[in-house]
Amino acid sequence: MQNTFPHSIPGRDYRVEDPFFTRLRTAVLRNVIPYQWEALNDRVPGAAPSGAIRNFRAAAGEIQAEHYGYVFQDSDLFKWMEAAAHSLMWAPDPHLEQELEATVDLIARAQQPDGYVDTYYILTDLSKRWTNLKDNHELYCAGHMFEAAVAHFRATGRTTFLQVAEKLADHIASVLGPEEGKLHGYPGHEEVELGLVKLFEATGCARYLELARYFITQRGREPLYFAEETARQGNSFFWKDGPLGYAYYQAHKPLLEQDRPVGHAVRANYLYAGAAAVARCTGDDALYRHLESLWREETQKQMYITGQVGSSEYGEAFTYPYDLPNDSAYAETCAGLALAFFAHQMLRIRRDSAYADVLERVLYNGTVSGMDLEGTSFFYVNPLSVVPAATREDQRLAHVKPVRQKWFGCACCPPNLARTLASLTDYALSATDNAVYQHLYLAGTFTLPLGGVPVGFTLSGQYPWAGEIRIRVEPHAPVRFTYGLRVPGWCPSFRLTCNGQPLSLSPTQGYLDIDRTWAPGDELCLTLEMPVQRVWAHPSVREDAGKVAVQRGPIVYCLEEADNGPDLHRILLPRTADFTVTHRPDLLGGVTVLACTGLRESGDDTALYSTRPPQADTPIPLTFIPYFVWANRGEGEMTVWLRDARS
Amino acid sequence: MQNTFPHSIPGRDYRVEDPFFTRLRTAVLRNVIPYQWEALNDRVPGAAPSGAIRNFRAAAGEIQAEHYGYVFQDSDLFKWMEAAAHSLMWAPDPHLEQELEATVDLIARAQQPDGYVDTYYILTDLSKRWTNLKDNHELYCAGHMFEAAVAHFRATGRTTFLQVAEKLADHIASVLGPEEGKLHGYPGHEEVELGLVKLFEATGCARYLELARYFITQRGREPLYFAEETARQGNSFFWKDGPLGYAYYQAHKPLLEQDRPVGHAVRANYLYAGAAAVARCTGDDALYRHLESLWREETQKQMYITGQVGSSEYGEAFTYPYDLPNDSAYAETCAGLALAFFAHQMLRIRRDSAYADVLERVLYNGTVSGMDLEGTSFFYVNPLSVVPAATREDQRLAHVKPVRQKWFGCACCPPNLARTLASLTDYALSATDNAVYQHLYLAGTFTLPLGGVPVGFTLSGQYPWAGEIRIRVEPHAPVRFTYGLRVPGWCPSFRLTCNGQPLSLSPTQGYLDIDRTWAPGDELCLTLEMPVQRVWAHPSVREDAGKVAVQRGPIVYCLEEADNGPDLHRILLPRTADFTVTHRPDLLGGVTVLACTGLRESGDDTALYSTRPPQADTPIPLTFIPYFVWANRGEGEMTVWLRDARS
Repeated sequence: MQNTFPHSIPGRDYRVEDPFFTRLRTAVLRNVIPYQWEALNDRVPGAAPSGAIRNFRAAAGEIQAEHYGYVFQDSDLFKWMEAAAHSLMWAPDPHLEQELEATVDLIARAQQPDGYVDTYYILTDLSKRWTNLKDNHELYCAGHMFEAAVAHFRATGRTTFLQVAEKLADHIASVLGPEEGKLHGYPGHEEVELGLVKLFEATGCARYLELARYFITQRGREPLYFAEETARQGNSFFWKDGPLGYAYYQAHKPLLEQDRPVGHAVRANYLYAGAAAVARCTGDDALYRHLESLWREETQKQMYITGQVGSSEYGEAFTYPYDLPNDSAYAETCAGLALAFFAHQMLRIRRDSAYADVLERVLYNGTVSGMDLEGTSFFYVNPLSVVPAATREDQRLAHVKPVRQKWFGCACCPPNLARTLASLTDYALSATDNAVYQHLYLAGTFTLPLGGVPVGFTLSGQYPWAGEIRIRVEPHAPVRFTYGLRVPGWCPSFRLTCNGQPLSLSPTQGYLDIDRTWAPGDELCLTLEMPVQRVWAHPSVREDAGKVAVQRGPIVYCLEEADNGPDLHRILLPRTADFTVTHRPDLLGGVTVLACTGLRESGDDTALYSTRPPQADTPIPLTFIPYFVWANRGEGEMTVWLRDARS
Repeated sequence: MQNTFPHSIPGRDYRVEDPFFTRLRTAVLRNVIPYQWEALNDRVPGAAPSGAIRNFRAAAGEIQAEHYGYVFQDSDLFKWMEAAAHSLMWAPDPHLEQELEATVDLIARAQQPDGYVDTYYILTDLSKRWTNLKDNHELYCAGHMFEAAVAHFRATGRTTFLQVAEKLADHIASVLGPEEGKLHGYPGHEEVELGLVKLFEATGCARYLELARYFITQRGREPLYFAEETARQGNSFFWKDGPLGYAYYQAHKPLLEQDRPVGHAVRANYLYAGAAAVARCTGDDALYRHLESLWREETQKQMYITGQVGSSEYGEAFTYPYDLPNDSAYAETCAGLALAFFAHQMLRIRRDSAYADVLERVLYNGTVSGMDLEGTSFFYVNPLSVVPAATREDQRLAHVKPVRQKWFGCACCPPNLARTLASLTDYALSATDNAVYQHLYLAGTFTLPLGGVPVGFTLSGQYPWAGEIRIRVEPHAPVRFTYGLRVPGWCPSFRLTCNGQPLSLSPTQGYLDIDRTWAPGDELCLTLEMPVQRVWAHPSVREDAGKVAVQRGPIVYCLEEADNGPDLHRILLPRTADFTVTHRPDLLGGVTVLACTGLRESGDDTALYSTRPPQADTPIPLTFIPYFVWANRGEGEMTVWLRDARS
């Protein structure tokens, strides 16, 4: 087991003023959180009702109503509460805090005397609870409650929600576990594992960690709990006849015997994130090493260049190594977020830029693409290539939308993105008592105790649009600690100065570890060379053969029809083309665009098949925009991978 | 309306000795017909029973049994009977003829007093007949019976089967039609239209032609019969909520208002073939012209280079113009055959190589690929690119098999291929009293009355493996007539001599019309230049952008892993590569193979994404085999389209 990083930094201690994320977090604050609160209260005209608040009011016996929505409807509320709580740390809002408090009270009133909370079973038949762990999401909802309660505690210091969460966790521990007479089960949709570890870390109660560990080690053990439960209860099993089976749930065999990511991509990464948290807190090195091998399989064989995962709509699932179709990608916003959670938990075990590079890739590209500029419409699916007509006419693309949607019946992605952006500072660094590692160059100011001394940090610059990062370090008194600065994997060369003097350091596991006694006013300047880069996929990725993508810094670019006309498949990128880099504060919320001269292929368009060879002979101006802001200018074609002229 | 071609040539009058088709027809005779007879009689150990014969025996009241199989199970038997009858014309077999006769007797015994025949309803509930024209295939089965009965009549001269067919057709005409009190319906799966026209042509009974015409003109008229039937009978409607709706059946609007091929590709082409037959027999020029526009839409926008159609597994259907995915192609063997039937019927209206080129393309490539060398295993789906592992792991490819299967629960394709190959000579030419047009250069000997004189023809050569075709014309006495020789669309130049003297003729609608007084022993020699050709798809075909296919004469080639190793997507074909052409009598039943030097792309295989450009730098020998013999050497990768090195 590597050294681990016990500390994260509360949102209130990191004031973010970032050229990339501030706009996104403002959209969450101004639009996503308020809009979703209205939705949860069924007050959005024209939208399908959520029923989430009403379900709780009915469960509390305050109104008469049947349960409405999915079995996991409660989780929409918990994720909103988590986002709202995180936001309070950096954007105090007494009115929001009051609503949050009232919601905690409502949940407490709905909680059963034994601690159980789940409006679906409370409002249908409580005697049926815990009879379908495979599909009915009680533990999934509980996990989201735990995460929300911990965030609420961190934000307000009040334990009201934590008490509800602990009471539920204690109830779960009384029903499930290794002891005789308990159910030897685990959740069909993982999430409670990470929630339990966070609850353990907030309360110090080892029972919660132990339960999380049980869920992870029990999962997939013979005899399979889900098979027995299905037979015993006569439950249906949707994936029975398909190629996935119990692998859909990562429950076909024990995690330690699973050699590559399988099944539903969100569930898989929630499992891995929870398992990494357990490995860290229990010092389980074998588990960590296994997760490390799954990490490599996932991020080196099944991850899109946008950091997204889940190649297939069928089962919203992983398929097989190097299968990365662009147009039919599932690449659910939640799956990318789940991979970020996994990366974050791995980073808390070992600071290694292999984790942070993926964390950065997915947070700057394939997740934030899930939201429009204003935070009022959302993608569930994040394809890497879209032809709008094809999404309507090709049933294989029925899941792909060419424009963002207002809301979803299954509203998992928008609040998931909201809670992640609201708690973004948690992901930016890891710390011990005398070391801090900067994973994300999130501009702003934060304070951290190091060597027993409060130390202020101010990061400034235009990252990710420019590679120069200035960091002012302000210890309250001189103090020695290690400050590790990540050199991103995309960066071909860098310069580092301290108070104007070059520091000659080589990265270790991708970090420049500056170990010194810091004095107030010390200033670091890290200059990351940030050229426009052509990126090619591994030769085994069939879908990208003969194609090239364009990246600059952590930002993956795409071509849109709005800039480049239709038939993007006819465009080739010469290897010799020079790029112009222009920051456009006016465009798409402020982005850097790339321009170059491409080639448009002419061909015989008089016949379906012709012996006349096409020629890439027409120079055309190309404009690349960052992938994450695609589809903000109406409906049109888009592609990340374009044809490589190989000359 | 163009001039039409009333005559086709019975199989007995065309002795085929062809370098391409003789082997295939022998396989049909030796293996497909006998094997299928055993299958129809439930005598194949280990195979799922067919039940087809048993159903008829039960329907005749000779055994007690429930109906077994699909609602269209009878059609398997009728298609087998048609294939067997055709084969008797060129390969007399008293034992087979006896079995066929006994089967006709069995069907006659199962026929109801009012003429009705359909074992599904006879064995379930006869009062329910004609209540689900949309899905229950009574008319489809009837159509196959009519085709079989006509073939039986042509083969044996006996009218036993024809009488059964006429009695059924008369019954149908009493139930369906424009008159008040009749059902104003039409079949969900077209086929009866062509069957009725053939029955009309065999019997001269105009009622059958009239009924076929009614089915075609009534189809899709408001109020929609299928919508009314579905509501009236409470029938299910599988396609209701999808993008296809009644277009699945080509029944969403009248045929004359349908501007492109839609829905189930087999049904669509059966409809068009039937409509073309009606247009020819009724002189309906407007209908012909509309079919001509559908023909262009289909063959110039939605046809694979193998002649196949039906891009999507969903609905086994057409999608939209230029959507021609290679790996997930449906391209059902039956759909290609249906397109051949459509081409054939169009050729009987107008001799135009636009039709014959497609007929040739589909008969030499995407249909005969449906059968292995021996005629003992079959493809339903004929993809243009296969990676075996992907067909198992990617649910979008669940319909694609990397090796041919022994039989299918839905056994439509093998007998369809058998009946087409058995009656191949019908497709080879069209004739009037004083003209004959050679569409397919099917080597062998045939006799035809022209200008009142029997004229013998002998075609010899190695076509399609070589471009020289020698034709000896032997009229019993000198006689003047036109002999039209098709110049295939793929042919860049040709030479034609008559008795050694060059004839300088230009093709009209793709045919060299030789109008002369022919004397015994006249000899034509047509030399079609047959270079190896690179073929590129229309620039709107996204799936083939940057790719090239290889064709020689009518034969489309492919790369197989067996010859070229795995990872075919890493191979590029230089535009400058010279091909070696070698006929290999020993290989795959005797085929011409092509060889050249290709390039294998190397790339950075240490990372999923890399800034190191791949290079097409390793020359490798490439071997191309004809597409139709792929997957005869075990499981492996295959591709028709490969990467175009563009240099």
